[in-house]
Amino acid sequence: MVKKYIIAIDLGGTNLKCALLDSSLRIKAKNSFSTKSFDNKHKLIDGVADSVNSFILSRKLSRDIIFGVGIGLPGPVDTLRGVVHFLPNIPGWKNVGFKKILERKTKLPVCIDNDAKLMALAEHRIGSARGYANALCLTLGTGVGGGLIINGALYRGADNAAGELGHIPLNEEGPLCGCGGKACLEAYIGNAAIIKDAHKLFGHGISLEELSRLARDKNAKAVKLWSRVGQKLGVALSGIVNLLNLDAIVIGGGISEAGAVLFENVKQTILQRAMSVQAKRVKIFKAKLGNNAGVIGAGFLVKERLAS
Amino acid sequence: MVKKYIIAIDLGGTNLKCALLDSSLRIKAKNSFSTKSFDNKHKLIDGVADSVNSFILSRKLSRDIIFGVGIGLPGPVDTLRGVVHFLPNIPGWKNVGFKKILERKTKLPVCIDNDAKLMALAEHRIGSARGYANALCLTLGTGVGGGLIINGALYRGADNAAGELGHIPLNEEGPLCGCGGKACLEAYIGNAAIIKDAHKLFGHGISLEELSRLARDKNAKAVKLWSRVGQKLGVALSGIVNLLNLDAIVIGGGISEAGAVLFENVKQTILQRAMSVQAKRVKIFKAKLGNNAGVIGAGFLVKERLAS
Repeated sequence: MVKKYIIAIDLGGTNLKCALLDSSLRIKAKNSFSTKSFDNKHKLIDGVADSVNSFILSRKLSRDIIFGVGIGLPGPVDTLRGVVHFLPNIPGWKNVGFKKILERKTKLPVCIDNDAKLMALAEHRIGSARGYANALCLTLGTGVGGGLIINGALYRGADNAAGELGHIPLNEEGPLCGCGGKACLEAYIGNAAIIKDAHKLFGHGISLEELSRLARDKNAKAVKLWSRVGQKLGVALSGIVNLLNLDAIVIGGGISEAGAVLFENVKQTILQRAMSVQAKRVKIFKAKLGNNAGVIGAGFLVKERLAS
Repeated sequence: MVKKYIIAIDLGGTNLKCALLDSSLRIKAKNSFSTKSFDNKHKLIDGVADSVNSFILSRKLSRDIIFGVGIGLPGPVDTLRGVVHFLPNIPGWKNVGFKKILERKTKLPVCIDNDAKLMALAEHRIGSARGYANALCLTLGTGVGGGLIINGALYRGADNAAGELGHIPLNEEGPLCGCGGKACLEAYIGNAAIIKDAHKLFGHGISLEELSRLARDKNAKAVKLWSRVGQKLGVALSGIVNLLNLDAIVIGGGISEAGAVLFENVKQTILQRAMSVQAKRVKIFKAKLGNNAGVIGAGFLVKERLAS
């Protein structure tokens, strides 16, 4: 049988996206599963394996025509050994050999990597960062992660743990973060922090989608809130731009939907705060691949490791 | 005539070091000139040229046996075109073709680069960062600069402006910095800031050398001051370590002489604030080449560009 397809999974804080990709990384089918019940290690492992198996079963796919399964995970991953060091939002998770466990449970070859790295890989290959030698691709969501492209290649660091820009301290002192650090960027502009700030500002609970819609409609409170998010992100990015003299920054993930107000505040803050040479060089783009970046990146991972 | 020597210059905020290196980068002679009078563009250019010329003259060197002059400068440099974008402490300096001007005034080939990059190059080739694929080498002094080694090579960025870790914001709000930014690390732990803090703490002016000596003698005030410096540096480095998953950080420059209290506070802060995988990976070293790192790096620059 000729192998034709890749199963690509993007495991986020709120849902698991599963996609069937052909060998040109085109999405042929998609499904989404809630991760609400994946609240401990065993439930998460079984949840991912069940999602893959039910995806295959419901589409009557033969395992013989599938190259393998690519999975992006929201935490530091040893991609070569297939070990997930930890997942910030899943208790009891420590150095789990996720690749081997899933290979047994799905009967398919499995490649795993950090989700933000896969998004960066996808955006660099066929998205907004295409053609830029040195780029940072961010995902803003439950977690604030990133992937660095250095000299045209995904930069991993010795433990494949590079790119954790959500855990750059924005201040010397500030709120505790799930990572064990303090005053991390994510503690200010992760989804949970934004929703909390919005509750204070509006006097009632409000969703991120609604906040984004209100900002696009120029609602003053929503504009104020997203301006602050853009400024905080801009301060952290100013430091990175000064350190790395980047060509491009690509912003993706849920809150990038807030649109112009977010992007304008990021750009203005970088122009005000970063050094002139670096500030003039860097281009700020919205991610092109949107919600599909994670699964497309997971597809590239499998293609490059198993299918080339 | 066979060329044998390199003239290497390290231009700091307080003095200009000039060294004669042989082709194996061994220092054969050294001299130091005060930069106090180099307070505008023309005086600085003439000062550097005069230093080179008097160094050659006083040693009765023939220009025929000199490969060229390597110069490290405290600001962003376009090393290939030989242009210095600006120097934070010299007014009126903007995109000066320093290489060409000096070649005319010294009648020798000239290579220029950012001083912190040259220190990093030297520390990676023959110093504390030797053998580490991904490393950051800092120079703490009048300015707080750095050079990044990525995958074993000096990482420059598109404008050769990478490595400016002194201009990573330590807080959202804070003191204005000479670079145009706000709350930059350098505004907290550059020499000027430390001397100001020490004046407050001790009630009188005190030199950095004295502060370092007092810290080594366990003077409580000096220990407190250097602990704070180490903690602030540690917070900024935690963010970099999380972003880059570095193998090694090398700390050099004047204030690295404060010794154990500085290094212990940097290490402890990184262990407390950075993510566990990254914090465990990174090794913190004192620079090995000390005050010679700048001139040795300038020598490597000339050797690799003109003599190989």
